[in-house]
Amino acid sequence: MPRSTGAPVHFDRVTLIGLGLVGSSLGWVLKKQHLAGEIVGHDAKPAVRAKALELGFIDRAESDVGKSVERADLVVVCVPMLAIGPVCEGIAPHLKAGAIVTDVGSCKTLARDAMVKALPKHVHAVPGHPVAGTEHSGPEAGFAEMFHQRWCILTPPPGSDAKAVRTVRNLWRRAGMHVETMDAERHDLVLAITSHLPHLIAYTIVDTAVDLEGDIKGDVIKFAAGGFRDFTRIAASDPTMWRDVFLTNKEAVLEMLGRFNEDLSVMQRAIRKGDGATLFDKFTRTRAIRRSIIQAKQA
Amino acid sequence: MPRSTGAPVHFDRVTLIGLGLVGSSLGWVLKKQHLAGEIVGHDAKPAVRAKALELGFIDRAESDVGKSVERADLVVVCVPMLAIGPVCEGIAPHLKAGAIVTDVGSCKTLARDAMVKALPKHVHAVPGHPVAGTEHSGPEAGFAEMFHQRWCILTPPPGSDAKAVRTVRNLWRRAGMHVETMDAERHDLVLAITSHLPHLIAYTIVDTAVDLEGDIKGDVIKFAAGGFRDFTRIAASDPTMWRDVFLTNKEAVLEMLGRFNEDLSVMQRAIRKGDGATLFDKFTRTRAIRRSIIQAKQA
Repeated sequence: MPRSTGAPVHFDRVTLIGLGLVGSSLGWVLKKQHLAGEIVGHDAKPAVRAKALELGFIDRAESDVGKSVERADLVVVCVPMLAIGPVCEGIAPHLKAGAIVTDVGSCKTLARDAMVKALPKHVHAVPGHPVAGTEHSGPEAGFAEMFHQRWCILTPPPGSDAKAVRTVRNLWRRAGMHVETMDAERHDLVLAITSHLPHLIAYTIVDTAVDLEGDIKGDVIKFAAGGFRDFTRIAASDPTMWRDVFLTNKEAVLEMLGRFNEDLSVMQRAIRKGDGATLFDKFTRTRAIRRSIIQAKQA
Repeated sequence: MPRSTGAPVHFDRVTLIGLGLVGSSLGWVLKKQHLAGEIVGHDAKPAVRAKALELGFIDRAESDVGKSVERADLVVVCVPMLAIGPVCEGIAPHLKAGAIVTDVGSCKTLARDAMVKALPKHVHAVPGHPVAGTEHSGPEAGFAEMFHQRWCILTPPPGSDAKAVRTVRNLWRRAGMHVETMDAERHDLVLAITSHLPHLIAYTIVDTAVDLEGDIKGDVIKFAAGGFRDFTRIAASDPTMWRDVFLTNKEAVLEMLGRFNEDLSVMQRAIRKGDGATLFDKFTRTRAIRRSIIQAKQA
């Protein structure tokens, strides 16, 4: 059973746009906790809509994205970053006054800009990012517990409606998340180092392995040890979602990647020169960070 | 209960040199499965020897490394790579004829060279590498199950005594491992990409985070998302052990690091130029590797 925390929250009609890993997980939260009178689902792919109906985390599938949001109190846009703008444009004329629109994307400056540009003044835009997921994708991958004990970061623009922000906060709390607000720029920088760069590096090292000569590659797969196995899990994440993350959070990712490259050069030189003292010193301070994270209960 | 697989194996006396994570885990295997008449333990640190005795995975602690191997049938050297040579020199005059000496280090060319150089002709040197571990260190970190379903790679030099190799193989099988033999050079290359490079990169990205400005660093620890959290776990591994890995498996690590750097540059340029097609293509092929690993039952 999902944890039920936070203030009560209920919607007459919720529309989920995008029925992949996050959309389906949120659907299960809404369904299992009876948080919505009706859950309407839209996905660009007919097969995904049919699967979502069959699984039962939505009550009704709607093939037209505009129609899907009619009379909805809450619209949650669960699509890759570059699809957020087009989706907002598609739903804008159909939203009822006072509706809340939120998203789940990894780049909050872009989500904010897309919403501000496309959505009418009479709806409340509350960009958000539930920092939770797995390496699996699609409507069958979702589960209500995915959000438990994870952080959700909301980035409401200045002047946002306080009640709307509170409603979105309560929704994610009901999903079991810890909810924090910060400005979009800061979110994007923090996520660049905690999530985007680790994914980029995992993708890269697995890519390096893919290019190895045939017989060595076989051994790499066979003997995948601790480190590499973890990287392949990360590098199995959804390609479209991650392509969009790197295209949209470009500046912050390039900034962090530049710093990483500098640090990697220092490591490389220490290895080449046989400088054990530098390596030992680096490896000791990284161990301390792990302790901080365990103390912050994020491990 | 540990799994008991493989042919029966029993020793009158086993000496474990180095009583950290691997030494203590192997001690528990020997103890719980009654594989040794007596388990003698040596560690350079008196406190570690005392703790090992107190925990009970050795029967007797010996402060003198030479004395510790007297009349031992099997000696397992469980020390960081750079300590293997000195340990072999210290025990050489004390080994009985026909004794088997094996190790657990991550660089097999160096282990082989150190053993060949230091050990007398009348003992059997069988370098080995149980590819198993956790981010924890010390005699209290060990547990018999650590080896279960993992690979152990033995790298006996040409002309090794077949019976001695079989005995070491049976030992690790009793610990629950799958045992394979290959030549030392190949082992070092495969481990460079599956284990050493992932650790180096994890250490580096966590190091990059350590250097962030204070308030951002606080947020990084607070919001440690999936990717980064996994990296901090890897980067919490024993600094001495890993320093030695990079100093000893230098050539293979630098080779793989060079390839990784090329691939990372391609990713970086794709991000900078907004080249989504290249990113999508890369992220799709890395996903396939994960499937291969799952099929190889290494996930």
